[in-house]
Amino acid sequence: MPIRSLIRTIPDYPKPGIMFRDIMTLLQDPEGLRIAIAQLIEPFTDMKIDKVAGIEARGFIIGGLVARDLNAGFVAIRKKGKLPFETVGRDYELEYGTDRVEIHTDAIDKGEKILLIDDLLATGGTAMAGLELIEAVGGDVVGTAFIIDLPDLGGSKKIRDAGHTVHTLVEYEGD
Amino acid sequence: MPIRSLIRTIPDYPKPGIMFRDIMTLLQDPEGLRIAIAQLIEPFTDMKIDKVAGIEARGFIIGGLVARDLNAGFVAIRKKGKLPFETVGRDYELEYGTDRVEIHTDAIDKGEKILLIDDLLATGGTAMAGLELIEAVGGDVVGTAFIIDLPDLGGSKKIRDAGHTVHTLVEYEGD
Repeated sequence: MPIRSLIRTIPDYPKPGIMFRDIMTLLQDPEGLRIAIAQLIEPFTDMKIDKVAGIEARGFIIGGLVARDLNAGFVAIRKKGKLPFETVGRDYELEYGTDRVEIHTDAIDKGEKILLIDDLLATGGTAMAGLELIEAVGGDVVGTAFIIDLPDLGGSKKIRDAGHTVHTLVEYEGD
Repeated sequence: MPIRSLIRTIPDYPKPGIMFRDIMTLLQDPEGLRIAIAQLIEPFTDMKIDKVAGIEARGFIIGGLVARDLNAGFVAIRKKGKLPFETVGRDYELEYGTDRVEIHTDAIDKGEKILLIDDLLATGGTAMAGLELIEAVGGDVVGTAFIIDLPDLGGSKKIRDAGHTVHTLVEYEGD
């Protein structure tokens, strides 16, 4: 499996016991980058997606590529305080405390078909907040896609339970 | 000029007197996104670029697209503490204090031809730090490209004085 072989695992990062899955080695490889994007967009090519929403920051790298290959626009879901125009935000839980993501209120027109993209799906907290933001500004979520899924952490189940599809390329169990 | 017309200006952001140039409105437009990337890569299509280095965070969106269109790999230049593997870093000056960008030490092979990408060139502090990082890990900088240049802030002159080419799509003077 070429994509999995290009993802690097860094043990004990950012803390002991965590196996960090590093996609930078995949993105550095021109063929890996090309294949990953082709596989990510495959379920969505006939769906007339209007915009692809990428989550800061690694979701920006692949979100831009997915947007262009689907002939869609790109919309940024950013960390708190980073967007210059009028925004709406959602808090999500971290291991300790909360964080917040925001979207421009005029980023999406009412009823536009939106695909949510990020590099990795773990607990799904950021992704669920992103989906709420898309719907809050009038978007119609037509799916989500991630390079990596850590299914033991429950994010993919959480998104499916909320009624959305989840497309992932590589799973790591036991994380 | 279609690209300029898709860039939104937000007066007095992030503080009074600053005219913030917002490329989100450009990226949201499928045609704007396509044209911007086509114009960005135009001087580099015959240069056999090995990797495109994008600066966090907006530089990730366009850097990934430029990399793929040049059949190159993508390398991330990130804020301090965000990269999981061994890094080298450089401080750069802000209006008040300093910030730091980092690159993975194994992101670039010795002698690889590297193009640096970001969305906007102002004082050039981040870009110059990024160029130093590329060279510190063995890369051969073959150029820089930005959607927006604010020439009055001196960044493009600083990069050219350091011996590198600067390709930009839209200039705003008086900023």
